[in-house]
Order: sequence, then structure tokens, then C-alpha cells
Amino acid sequence: MPLPKILQNKVIAKTRFFQVEALDLEFSNGIKRTYERIPEPRTQGVIVVAINAADELLLIREYAAGFHELQLTLPKGIVDAGESLEEAARRELAEEVGFSARNVTFIKRLTLAPGHMGYSIHAMLAQDLYEKHLPGDEPEPPEVVPWPLARLDELINGDQFNEARAIAALLMCREQLASRSG
Amino acid sequence: MPLPKILQNKVIAKTRFFQVEALDLEFSNGIKRTYERIPEPRTQGVIVVAINAADELLLIREYAAGFHELQLTLPKGIVDAGESLEEAARRELAEEVGFSARNVTFIKRLTLAPGHMGYSIHAMLAQDLYEKHLPGDEPEPPEVVPWPLARLDELINGDQFNEARAIAALLMCREQLASRSG
Repeated sequence: MPLPKILQNKVIAKTRFFQVEALDLEFSNGIKRTYERIPEPRTQGVIVVAINAADELLLIREYAAGFHELQLTLPKGIVDAGESLEEAARRELAEEVGFSARNVTFIKRLTLAPGHMGYSIHAMLAQDLYEKHLPGDEPEPPEVVPWPLARLDELINGDQFNEARAIAALLMCREQLASRSG
Repeated sequence: MPLPKILQNKVIAKTRFFQVEALDLEFSNGIKRTYERIPEPRTQGVIVVAINAADELLLIREYAAGFHELQLTLPKGIVDAGESLEEAARRELAEEVGFSARNVTFIKRLTLAPGHMGYSIHAMLAQDLYEKHLPGDEPEPPEVVPWPLARLDELINGDQFNEARAIAALLMCREQLASRSG
């Protein structure tokens, strides 16, 4: 199956945070369809699996506007101009959980809904943490929730932790984490 | 940290596929902010980990408009009115990979970007497959790519499979899958 041809691409809605494009497409069998998408943003993002010296995963509980709920998730944020992914991961940790990390490694680029959104986020593993606080840009600082690695199954199979990119990031570094939780 | 109060909620953009709301919020410390979100849709979705008798995972390669690329992913789709999650999983399999399943179990509800979107999808595991074809609604039928379970690590760690909800679903049923791949 070859890529469809883009006959036309226009912005059909634009708000402060979201932009929607309509793509007029012609598929290789001649069928024409208009697809809508949120295009790839100019900024990149990181989501961070951070493990402290007590073999705890550092979670945050923060406001999730999509559901108007407080939800448990991993620290994450936008990569600032000029920052590497590792630097962004360290800064986000300092802003959201009050730690930075000596050891930060890239795990995987993750997409969310690639049929409709050109969005991806880079999963990072942070270890060898040390205390460091930076002011964040949230209206209220998120609550930090340390979660023992030994109880990771309970987190992942339970009903208070549902974010696919956070679960994918965590399970992808499970082998490395398993050797720590004894 | 208590939930912020919603002072006002209005639709600020609406296209055929997307709707964007602006939420005027007041946080418990008195700070007011306007958040934008794509609200929870009226439909639900399923994403299906389907394993055939040869211990292969059934992937599809389909057009991903968000990146204008052909990408490898799991079969997925919207739950039709009146359908259960299990029925939707069976129908989507028949439409996208030409199989149905005698054994379908629920794995987990997964969210994508709950800070900005009220969207979630239900991960399902399908086993005991049998051939069944239903016409799909795609302009071109997706390419079916059987992937040996024994090579799951290669898929997940490689650079052609990046969808967080698909990786989360796969890794969440890894223990059940491991007992099959020998």
C-alpha cells in the first residue's frame, strides 16, 4: 500500500493551544477522502520515569482538564528551545518533584494517536537523583506521590493510573527496574 | 490539592472530527487560568492484541495522517451503538485483519493525554481466532502483518512501532503471551 497523495492541506481551526488541519487525500485506488488532523507541534516533549534511592517511582497527582479530575501520572513537559531531551527531563523533575538526576537515559519515542495527531513524546529513565527545586509553571504545584517499585503491578493493573504513554514508559524499563526492587 | 472550580466552559472551535473547549478555572489558591481541552467523545474505542494459532501477533500497517506515514499498529476502532467492548473488538478484527475470536478479555482502559483530551480507549486481548471477513470503512484495506510473539522485544524496542497505547496494551498482556511463545 503506497502513501496517499495530499491534494490540499489547510488549517480549518486554530485556538491558543490547538490547530486542526483538513487534508484532502487521494489513495492509490483513486478514492478521495478528507482527513482531519492536529499537525506535529514545533515543540517536543519528555515524560520521565524517575527512581529515587529508596527504590520508589516518583509519581505526581495533577489536574487533568480532559476529564476534570486529579490523576496520577509521571512528570512530563515541553523541551525548551536549545535544551537536549536529557536536560529537559532534569528540569521537569526539578520543577515537578523537587529532584534532578545524574543518570538520564532515553527509552523510546512514543506517539499518542498517530491517525489524528502528529504528536510524540520522548520517554526517559532518570536515576541517581539528588534534591533540586526549580519553580514550575503550574497554577498549583502537583502533589508528589512516591510509589514503591515492588508494588508496580498494583499501580499498572489498578484503576488510578491509566495514561498509556506512562504505562508504556514504565513497562519498557521494567527489566532495569526489576533489578533494583530486589 | 482539591479540584479547581470550572467558572465557565465554552466551545471555541468545532470541526467535523474535533471539538475544542475553553475552561475558565479557579484553583484552590485563587489563581485563575483558562485551559483548553478536547472533551470526552460520546463514542468509546477498543484496541486489540490478537494472537493467532501460530503464536503471532496480528499487526496492521495503515496510513497515519498525523505524520503522513504508513505505520505499524494494532487493530482498533470505535464501539458502535449497542455493542459491548468484546463485540466491538471482534468486529474490528474481522474488518481489519480477517479474523474473529472466541476468547476476548478486557485488559485496561487507557487514556492518551488526559491534561488536554478526555479521550480513552479500551485495550482487549483476543485469542482462539477463526477466519471471518467483514467490510471495513477504510478507503484502502490495511496491510496485515503477522509478528511472531518470540520477536516481541524487537518490535517494542525497534523504531517502527511507537504508539504508546499499543505498546502499553502489548506489555500489559506480556505474561499471558509469554506462556504461549515458549
